[in-house]
Amino acid sequence: VSPPPTTSHPGLRLVACALLGLALYLLPAPAGLVGPDGRFFGPGESATVGATSLVAGWHVLAVFAAAVLGFVLRPFPMGAVTIFALTVLALTRTLTFERVLSGFADPTVWLVVAAFLIAGVVIRSGLGRRIALTLVVGLGRSTLGLGYALCASEMILGTVIPSNTARGGGVLAPIARALSEALGSKPHDRPERVGAYLMLVGAHANLIAAAMYLTGMAANPLVRDAARKVFGIEFGWGTWLAGSIVPALVSFAALPLVIGRLARPTMDDVAVARAAAREQLAAMGKFSRHERLTALVGAGLVALWATKPLHGLDTTLVAWMGIGALLILQVEDWQNLVRNDGAWDALIWVGGILTMATALRDLGVIGWFAWSVQAWVAPFSGVVVLVLLALVYFYSMYAFSMLTAHIAAMVAAFLAIAKTAMVAPLVVVALLAYFSNLCACLTPYSSGSVIIYFGNGYVSSHRWFVVGFVVSLVHLVVWLGVGGLWWKVLGWW
Amino acid sequence: VSPPPTTSHPGLRLVACALLGLALYLLPAPAGLVGPDGRFFGPGESATVGATSLVAGWHVLAVFAAAVLGFVLRPFPMGAVTIFALTVLALTRTLTFERVLSGFADPTVWLVVAAFLIAGVVIRSGLGRRIALTLVVGLGRSTLGLGYALCASEMILGTVIPSNTARGGGVLAPIARALSEALGSKPHDRPERVGAYLMLVGAHANLIAAAMYLTGMAANPLVRDAARKVFGIEFGWGTWLAGSIVPALVSFAALPLVIGRLARPTMDDVAVARAAAREQLAAMGKFSRHERLTALVGAGLVALWATKPLHGLDTTLVAWMGIGALLILQVEDWQNLVRNDGAWDALIWVGGILTMATALRDLGVIGWFAWSVQAWVAPFSGVVVLVLLALVYFYSMYAFSMLTAHIAAMVAAFLAIAKTAMVAPLVVVALLAYFSNLCACLTPYSSGSVIIYFGNGYVSSHRWFVVGFVVSLVHLVVWLGVGGLWWKVLGWW
Repeated sequence: VSPPPTTSHPGLRLVACALLGLALYLLPAPAGLVGPDGRFFGPGESATVGATSLVAGWHVLAVFAAAVLGFVLRPFPMGAVTIFALTVLALTRTLTFERVLSGFADPTVWLVVAAFLIAGVVIRSGLGRRIALTLVVGLGRSTLGLGYALCASEMILGTVIPSNTARGGGVLAPIARALSEALGSKPHDRPERVGAYLMLVGAHANLIAAAMYLTGMAANPLVRDAARKVFGIEFGWGTWLAGSIVPALVSFAALPLVIGRLARPTMDDVAVARAAAREQLAAMGKFSRHERLTALVGAGLVALWATKPLHGLDTTLVAWMGIGALLILQVEDWQNLVRNDGAWDALIWVGGILTMATALRDLGVIGWFAWSVQAWVAPFSGVVVLVLLALVYFYSMYAFSMLTAHIAAMVAAFLAIAKTAMVAPLVVVALLAYFSNLCACLTPYSSGSVIIYFGNGYVSSHRWFVVGFVVSLVHLVVWLGVGGLWWKVLGWW
Repeated sequence: VSPPPTTSHPGLRLVACALLGLALYLLPAPAGLVGPDGRFFGPGESATVGATSLVAGWHVLAVFAAAVLGFVLRPFPMGAVTIFALTVLALTRTLTFERVLSGFADPTVWLVVAAFLIAGVVIRSGLGRRIALTLVVGLGRSTLGLGYALCASEMILGTVIPSNTARGGGVLAPIARALSEALGSKPHDRPERVGAYLMLVGAHANLIAAAMYLTGMAANPLVRDAARKVFGIEFGWGTWLAGSIVPALVSFAALPLVIGRLARPTMDDVAVARAAAREQLAAMGKFSRHERLTALVGAGLVALWATKPLHGLDTTLVAWMGIGALLILQVEDWQNLVRNDGAWDALIWVGGILTMATALRDLGVIGWFAWSVQAWVAPFSGVVVLVLLALVYFYSMYAFSMLTAHIAAMVAAFLAIAKTAMVAPLVVVALLAYFSNLCACLTPYSSGSVIIYFGNGYVSSHRWFVVGFVVSLVHLVVWLGVGGLWWKVLGWW
């Protein structure tokens, strides 16, 4: 996507990844991969419990760890690293080849692909450029203003589009891209000018909006369900927002400033750019047919995504309907759609990571991990347990490529463990609920929206990891600190 | 891929497809979709037998028929038509969305993708051009000579590479492409000059080689197994070739002539082109590093594909290993690989067709079809039954996108039905064995190799169907006529 972070030969870095994988692979699998009662931790394959599948889980973990190191060191682009990892899994017969390919049939992958394709149309139709120029003219007194424009958009759209991938990747990422280009910043031509900044603000703002609303992310209701089951608490739309509103607003306020430190825009001619944008906007004249139709289809998509409870149509299916409409209305032809490298690159690595993440769950590794955590926090008590659990829950997201999978695999177990700490239930639920989304700040492969912002190519994967880690620290301070105080005000503890 | 065959508005043609689909969809499903004994014909879902799934099978058939009409009329490119079809299947809840996406995890799809990517490297490295120029210099006295060069290559490689997709798509299609370009024929620039001719010869020669050897196509052993089970006949490598050698040689001899009629190369300066090729070859000088490494990896692929019985590595996995090697050797970088539109276009439509074909089988439609055929041929006897069965078997390939699926779904049933006709068993097995491969001549989506030749974009889908139908008639004459006589000579009847 962008030049490798170091100048050493890719071979050396590839060897480093391979060595990590090999070392883990050859280590004996932890005995605890079978629970003390001999029960297998995997949800699916209890019939196949036995040394083989447990070792298989450990081996998947070894290959996955090597791949993640590969994403950081970048001996090769992420797609290539993923192909290597999948090939190793098949060659070592850790997974069957059918299983290795299973990630490529995941609806999440195809939502990402569809969002890439739609974003391409928004850009090529000129609509993205018009919206971007309008934003620059209206809010472009500074790059900071543009960052806040993205935050505000997320906060508003977060109330109506319950898929964070659709919202961030399908609606706002193309606008952020057009904004960057309108300001003279392209992935391979001055990405530092403003593009890298906008991509990072956009992606992280998307996750704050995801945390803010029960309907901010597709799998948030799973947290509510788990809270009902474990604590008998109804953590509904209103309660969710009551707890999140203060820390979320603080996060939104801080985000453009923090990213401005970590990826300071180098453009120093904002006023000139703004004047130029005003001229360019005037030069664009009236809305073209393609712009009007793209806006129409976009409005249709937002409407269908927002009303999902009424019709139940899969988010990805809705995106496909949008693509179908753009084709039938002849806004875009198929050849242009297919010529979208970013979409296919993402298909490969997102699909591959999903294969591995699913295998980790099905082969019991996630269950074993949750159980180990329980054993590990047993000596502590009260708030210490809660904070430890929250941190482990947050940073375990390094091993996941889908917020939904992370939540589905772990939230119920972690709520159950936290219950033993005897801390105020509402605080426990709140922390895990919000962290369920904020944790996606860590990696460039954590969620569809992040994948798409990252896929624009303004920020190297190495740097995305670094910025993500710093943002995670800011989130911890805001949500544990400000959040903790606010929940005290609410009387939750 | 190429301009639509008619000049009418795409909307009209789309409406025609939609009307066909709607009419079939609304017709009541044939009562016979459940067999006379109430048994469901689907292999997988006997637990879900009931009106719903039978109607679902019929509905998939309606959408599939509309999609195939769409491939012929081409209101939109095949990828777009496939997206429309899949969207309709999901919107009508005929299939779950997970199921709609299942075709994208099929190893066949990814073999096709891998072959596209490898072909791109063969071309860009210059190796394809060098081989092509050498062929033109050596055999390019006429375009006919080049056609025979492709046939001879298929006949030789057919003995060692048992996957027709790997052989045709991975090895020979890139050479045919380079040949076309070396002779000044590109998909959008004089495709008629020689490219269309070479693509058609290459694809159909691949299928003749697939029919010629037991090891010419991955699923041929299924035919041998079924013959053993139904007739107790051992139709092994030698017997297979004994029966095929004469009609196959006749087919190879006829093919370049027949295609020369149907897609006459318009180039009339063969001598000039050959002289130019000689000069260009000289100008290329010595093998470059990229060419040598590509040749090395190519040789490794052929070696691994040829020795599959020894190591059992999946054909697609081997292709991925080749891609991995090309990346690690830095012959090609990932961005160039990903920039291969043809691969992603094929991924979409091949994946979508596989979804539908698999659903037709799992929902009992194929089983119902075989049973209906049995009832239909019951009044006839002897050779008439055999010929009817062979024809139905051959032309039913319109509904399949994988030779393997066609064979797996039908050959055992058809052998069993044919047994009732009391014709010489060896002739029955021979006909179905060879037709199992030749039938892929009918459509541009029949097999991986065909998909890749077609995907080069020299021949419109409409025209591919027309040429395929004519070739099918030639095959019938050769294999029923010459084949029948030859099998008499062999004493098979």
